[in-house]
Amino acid sequence: MSDALNLVLFSGTADKLHAAATLAAGAAAMDRPVNILVQYWALDAFRSERIEQNLGLSWDATADGASRPVGGTRSINWLETLRMAKELGEVRVLACSGSMDVLGIAMSALDPIVDTEGGIATFLAAAEDGQIVFI
Amino acid sequence: MSDALNLVLFSGTADKLHAAATLAAGAAAMDRPVNILVQYWALDAFRSERIEQNLGLSWDATADGASRPVGGTRSINWLETLRMAKELGEVRVLACSGSMDVLGIAMSALDPIVDTEGGIATFLAAAEDGQIVFI
Amino acid sequence: MSDALNLVLFSGTADKLHAAATLAAGAAAMDRPVNILVQYWALDAFRSERIEQNLGLSWDATADGASRPVGGTRSINWLETLRMAKELGEVRVLACSGSMDVLGIAMSALDPIVDTEGGIATFLAAAEDGQIVFI
Repeated sequence: MSDALNLVLFSGTADKLHAAATLAAGAAAMDRPVNILVQYWALDAFRSERIEQNLGLSWDATADGASRPVGGTRSINWLETLRMAKELGEVRVLACSGSMDVLGIAMSALDPIVDTEGGIATFLAAAEDGQIVFI
Repeated sequence: MSDALNLVLFSGTADKLHAAATLAAGAAAMDRPVNILVQYWALDAFRSERIEQNLGLSWDATADGASRPVGGTRSINWLETLRMAKELGEVRVLACSGSMDVLGIAMSALDPIVDTEGGIATFLAAAEDGQIVFI
Repeated sequence: MSDALNLVLFSGTADKLHAAATLAAGAAAMDRPVNILVQYWALDAFRSERIEQNLGLSWDATADGASRPVGGTRSINWLETLRMAKELGEVRVLACSGSMDVLGIAMSALDPIVDTEGGIATFLAAAEDGQIVFI
């Protein structure tokens, strides 16, 4: 089977993007190709004017008695981790064309960490029979 | 390995159901079998009296500075996409019997897009070693 | 390919932990090895002082018209299901060292259901090319 790790990024909070970026970096460090499809709120977070902003935390963080990140949300440096993953190995970031339509986001509005634009079929074809992780 | 795409639908918001439906439609268009297990809030959304309603968006949509769907939530036509997926190929929708118990939902309350009822073991056996995506 | 089922637990709500535990129990009952990486809000929920508490439900449960669990949130006994999974088969629970740093949680603060501590590389190596499910 394909040894690619394939991630569908749907969520746009710093904690989930961090979880995704660490998976990508781990796989890249093991010389595995990584394909990332960026959809919906993740796509929205990848806009140039938003990607460096404080993206907040998941709903789970609002629960009574939940811990807070040491150093605050800003300390969850998911973007640095994702950039490192791209330096470590073959990590392709694809903006989902369907989500671009739904949210009205053009390719020119996205951060250059996005490599190209494409649809589900492109992503599934690249993923072949490798692992797919939806985050 | 199996070339089936296997989806566990847990979430009941329109955006996540749309992400799931587009994955299902993409795989079906590539002649891949698709097995869908519908659990918890997705199952709740598949009730006949709710499936055509406005199901809202994910928590991430509430973040400061997040974009809004062009045309509003109603424009996210996940159900039409899922119905199209079923027309395109072999897409089976299984209602999770455990979640039916937890939420007190009977098979008769579900939309006919659900094919049958079953448990985790049935789903895992059908999934074999194909990709599993939890949404 | 590997027949292991590999779960990344990110979420700390009772409903998602229940979905994860039932997948683990189903796979264990089929004699499949199960590797679980516990991150972020799931890790936070695995603290000894929190694991028996009411962990609440997902954001989706707050939607207008959503059903409520029969018997309330307390009736979603995810921990019992996860313990059963560990009795049924080979289920390994790994605390994510990166998340321990982010949230300031030491191994000694975690419930004994956690077997050990490790990073993404450890998890990906154990997962090999088996299914990975992010919950």
